Amino acid sequence: MNKPLVGIIMGSKSDLPIMKDASDFLEELNIDFELTVVSAHRTPERMFEYATSAAERGLKVIIAGAGGAAHLPGMVASLTSLPVIGVPVKSSNSIDGWDSVLSILQMPNGIPVATVALNAAKNAGILAAQIIGSADKEVFTRVEAFKKELKSKVEEAAESLKSEGFPCSF
Amino acid sequence: MNKPLVGIIMGSKSDLPIMKDASDFLEELNIDFELTVVSAHRTPERMFEYATSAAERGLKVIIAGAGGAAHLPGMVASLTSLPVIGVPVKSSNSIDGWDSVLSILQMPNGIPVATVALNAAKNAGILAAQIIGSADKEVFTRVEAFKKELKSKVEEAAESLKSEGFPCSF
Amino acid sequence: MNKPLVGIIMGSKSDLPIMKDASDFLEELNIDFELTVVSAHRTPERMFEYATSAAERGLKVIIAGAGGAAHLPGMVASLTSLPVIGVPVKSSNSIDGWDSVLSILQMPNGIPVATVALNAAKNAGILAAQIIGSADKEVFTRVEAFKKELKSKVEEAAESLKSEGFPCSF
Amino acid sequence: MNKPLVGIIMGSKSDLPIMKDASDFLEELNIDFELTVVSAHRTPERMFEYATSAAERGLKVIIAGAGGAAHLPGMVASLTSLPVIGVPVKSSNSIDGWDSVLSILQMPNGIPVATVALNAAKNAGILAAQIIGSADKEVFTRVEAFKKELKSKVEEAAESLKSEGFPCSF
Amino acid sequence: MNKPLVGIIMGSKSDLPIMKDASDFLEELNIDFELTVVSAHRTPERMFEYATSAAERGLKVIIAGAGGAAHLPGMVASLTSLPVIGVPVKSSNSIDGWDSVLSILQMPNGIPVATVALNAAKNAGILAAQIIGSADKEVFTRVEAFKKELKSKVEEAAESLKSEGFPCSF
Amino acid sequence: MNKPLVGIIMGSKSDLPIMKDASDFLEELNIDFELTVVSAHRTPERMFEYATSAAERGLKVIIAGAGGAAHLPGMVASLTSLPVIGVPVKSSNSIDGWDSVLSILQMPNGIPVATVALNAAKNAGILAAQIIGSADKEVFTRVEAFKKELKSKVEEAAESLKSEGFPCSF
Amino acid sequence: MNKPLVGIIMGSKSDLPIMKDASDFLEELNIDFELTVVSAHRTPERMFEYATSAAERGLKVIIAGAGGAAHLPGMVASLTSLPVIGVPVKSSNSIDGWDSVLSILQMPNGIPVATVALNAAKNAGILAAQIIGSADKEVFTRVEAFKKELKSKVEEAAESLKSEGFPCSF
Amino acid sequence: MNKPLVGIIMGSKSDLPIMKDASDFLEELNIDFELTVVSAHRTPERMFEYATSAAERGLKVIIAGAGGAAHLPGMVASLTSLPVIGVPVKSSNSIDGWDSVLSILQMPNGIPVATVALNAAKNAGILAAQIIGSADKEVFTRVEAFKKELKSKVEEAAESLKSEGFPCSF
Repeated sequence: MNKPLVGIIMGSKSDLPIMKDASDFLEELNIDFELTVVSAHRTPERMFEYATSAAERGLKVIIAGAGGAAHLPGMVASLTSLPVIGVPVKSSNSIDGWDSVLSILQMPNGIPVATVALNAAKNAGILAAQIIGSADKEVFTRVEAFKKELKSKVEEAAESLKSEGFPCSF
Repeated sequence: MNKPLVGIIMGSKSDLPIMKDASDFLEELNIDFELTVVSAHRTPERMFEYATSAAERGLKVIIAGAGGAAHLPGMVASLTSLPVIGVPVKSSNSIDGWDSVLSILQMPNGIPVATVALNAAKNAGILAAQIIGSADKEVFTRVEAFKKELKSKVEEAAESLKSEGFPCSF
Repeated sequence: MNKPLVGIIMGSKSDLPIMKDASDFLEELNIDFELTVVSAHRTPERMFEYATSAAERGLKVIIAGAGGAAHLPGMVASLTSLPVIGVPVKSSNSIDGWDSVLSILQMPNGIPVATVALNAAKNAGILAAQIIGSADKEVFTRVEAFKKELKSKVEEAAESLKSEGFPCSF
Repeated sequence: MNKPLVGIIMGSKSDLPIMKDASDFLEELNIDFELTVVSAHRTPERMFEYATSAAERGLKVIIAGAGGAAHLPGMVASLTSLPVIGVPVKSSNSIDGWDSVLSILQMPNGIPVATVALNAAKNAGILAAQIIGSADKEVFTRVEAFKKELKSKVEEAAESLKSEGFPCSF
Repeated sequence: MNKPLVGIIMGSKSDLPIMKDASDFLEELNIDFELTVVSAHRTPERMFEYATSAAERGLKVIIAGAGGAAHLPGMVASLTSLPVIGVPVKSSNSIDGWDSVLSILQMPNGIPVATVALNAAKNAGILAAQIIGSADKEVFTRVEAFKKELKSKVEEAAESLKSEGFPCSF
Repeated sequence: MNKPLVGIIMGSKSDLPIMKDASDFLEELNIDFELTVVSAHRTPERMFEYATSAAERGLKVIIAGAGGAAHLPGMVASLTSLPVIGVPVKSSNSIDGWDSVLSILQMPNGIPVATVALNAAKNAGILAAQIIGSADKEVFTRVEAFKKELKSKVEEAAESLKSEGFPCSF
Repeated sequence: MNKPLVGIIMGSKSDLPIMKDASDFLEELNIDFELTVVSAHRTPERMFEYATSAAERGLKVIIAGAGGAAHLPGMVASLTSLPVIGVPVKSSNSIDGWDSVLSILQMPNGIPVATVALNAAKNAGILAAQIIGSADKEVFTRVEAFKKELKSKVEEAAESLKSEGFPCSF
Repeated sequence: MNKPLVGIIMGSKSDLPIMKDASDFLEELNIDFELTVVSAHRTPERMFEYATSAAERGLKVIIAGAGGAAHLPGMVASLTSLPVIGVPVKSSNSIDGWDSVLSILQMPNGIPVATVALNAAKNAGILAAQIIGSADKEVFTRVEAFKKELKSKVEEAAESLKSEGFPCSF
């Protein structure tokens, strides 16, 4: 693998089953990434170093996932000028995900976090690709191809419903 | 102004007082933008044309703001491969902003919207700049300068509290 | 089956177990329908064509079900002058159903969606029948018969409680 | 005025400033209506008589608005086979409108209420027109004309932004 | 059993496993009750008759349980001058119980419902006993005895913790 | 005034404007009451004495109002076998009233509080009258008269709408 | 064990599996505690005695856990001048934990409760240790050691991800 | 003033009107404090230095107030072994305070924040005094005196209600 363009970090290794959706998508689109654990609350110094060195290490986007009172995405955003994508994780200590969502989304003016839906690490991966694709024609084309596939799958599902006997005049 | 890099759209002209924070920031950072009204529900064809032509018209990022059952950001995201930033607006027909937030944030896997805080159009502008800056060294530097200013203002506030007589040994 | 009067669409085939309650009811009342998958986010063009052709294809009502940031019912409503019934689906990516409910219900003035309860596709089918029955005496009579059955079942339940030994002087 | 096709009722005269939006729209579209106060909790007998006589009095649709623990729409729906549109009103005794919304929307299977957004009586009027228009070509055409107007107003707003100096290449 | 003093009704037989806690408590305290199914939405006439005849049939209190858009307790309260206790049931069609709670609790001024906690039918039974005990010395004494038992059980639990080895100096 | 039958207490004198609705109603119905301030958190001993002496002092019902983390109604209920009515007050330190509602309503099994709507002290007064009226024919008759008045006012409002020109065939 | 410094109480023995996390942590840090059941609602006198005797019995901090309308932490705080830590327990009668959280957190000015996250009894134990450590150098040092361990575990997790093949340049 | 024992920090000078309640109380109880602005997001380095130097600078407790996605209290707690009290501030960018509350309260196990009610900076001051008083007899006595005053004010309010003519037999 080449020098990573996307850094994927999470507050705890227990977030991996969710966050792997981001790295899987980037792998599928052939975009180099790195993935590790960085905890805002248990390893604040590690978080500082990670965030402040990210741009010079060549990263273009950071994806940060965390649950409960989720401070990792916002704190990383405060320490870098790169775009930071936040994934609210519905962890075991979360109140139905509301705490994760609000503590990532509701950042004060000055320090945005690009928040995606609860547990939507795949969307974080897609958004990272779109950000890179915004300046890289080839990646842009790969994102477009991915979206065409999405469309085909819906059309196939529509066909399969017909073959299962559901009437449709459309 | 040159060819715009950022497209700012909103569901209704009544969203302008909120959404202007985005264009003001981009102006401050000298990033070319365009700004107009596009309603998902009242002008769906206009929305289709806007979104599907955005990339070829040279836009790099789209900022879309809307309130209530806010479908504009998500529908635009479904029609382009550019990154789309969503601004939930607490409009007069909104239930405390929850409808705006959830109908922009909770996009299904496949079609992300980079959601910022309620009414946080300024953060949408900053995020757009960061996305462009991710591949454009000069814009990146301007974002870094902006963040330094934020820091100075806090330090000044700390000083002013001292001069108002609040003790502080730090 | 004759020309369908009710179009039932859903954002994903995974919504079928919920949405089938609507078609089952219409079948029970002998009202012709069609049923297919139309995704607002993955097949926006298909949605446009479906909605804009609905009236001329002879549909009288559209039932649209979707979950999460559910844009299908509202977008279809923006593209047709037929009444549109929205079914908020508590899909796997939903925050306890609140996102589905609010992004369907809270439509701006101008573009109503007739929203029913979370997952209540059966009620969507009944409402579609009532809308058709509003101008079709025979369908109206079938709805009335259905409501009488509901009553009988409650009265039977009351009897069965008595026979299970629960006292009741009423 | 001729025999009314739409019955507009509300739980309290204090709901009139909200509910008048429904009658104003029907007047605009030249659809005959009636409007009165019927309280589920203070005049349950009146509600019974209103609902059970509605169809034979010639009504095609009922619009019912109420706030707080809002039982009027659901109870009327239980007593008639006509379609009933519910308007959750954010009355002074409501907890931010949530009680009004949930006690109208979350009807059990068997008895649907076509719920519109909080305070959205105008949308209730439009939906009533669409229901009538579903079987009445002329009313359908008037609804289509209304939707074209909505579109024009957005396009005018887009123009006015240009003339106020906001750049737009679209 | 003698003439019932407490009427226990529920919107659906499926509420019985919850509502039985009320009748079990009344049985334990030797207070005569009746129990049946009365649906506000499916048997509105039955509800009318039940509520309007309740006082003359000798009932002193009514306990009404329902879920979702729960109109039974409030509608019964509108039709009788007896105190009505409402039990919000977290039924399968409920959004985490919020709809049940709000549509029972948030009654407009004029028509109170004495609401207890979600699913807390036992508390409804106790409250009914307290209301009767308010004017009946003997029942009051039985309620007092019940509360003493509650206390003993806590003291026993405290003892058992000690014997399990948890230190306590109190 | 004679020996009070209803005790009205509130956590703070600032709750008086809300809680006076309860005493006003009891005065209107000629039911003797007492009213004072008892704070669970600031005067726990006073609360203990008030609650444990209530029954022997002749009270038949207690109405307790409080806001925020509102412990007064539940704690009083734990200390007496009389029925306790809880009024959630939307005080200045409350989060939109949710804390007041939930900390009064959600009592554990064993210790019910008869909760009324947010700020609905008038309903607490009515419920207290209904509880007394449950065993006192004369008070029951006064409650019935009050409910007839409610009905008349709605019918007058319906008439006034007609005279204001709103059509109504009912 | 010596004289306890921390008193751990809970409203019901069923809270023990949650609350044991607090005593386990204190045991790990070698801080003496006591643990018992004290119910605000079922044993109010026991609660009074516990709270009013706590300081003279040598306790330095009290940890109180309860669910639903959780009055134990706040009532204990009203009866002692010691710091009281509240643990909202998501008990079976709780609405997703919101009632527990709000009825412990939202205490009126004058009577604070140091609230920790839902079910976070371990954090209550850590906070108790920090409060004692605030004046006791040795305990402070043990807390610092505990926090270093937390850090090591994260670093180990980061290493294990590398060895599982996830790329990381950091 | 002597060496401060309590550090009061806030995310923005605009939080001062709320946070001053903490310093006012500490001044009243003659406990030395310092007060300044430290922003987690705009001055992360300043926050690191503040938190890591707090204990050696002699502080015994830290009070941190912030609004929206409020990361200051939790991040400070991650960087010190002192007890940290969090004050959720309902700032202008907050969704009714829910974001502030949840992002401070819902800390993961390992890093507690002693959270007080929304905007309850006075309670934060009292809690800080109780923590210090837990090991300092004199401060403990001052807290006890403060609590007696609270009680007197309630008793005075009760007297004033009597003199305003509200009957009370207690």
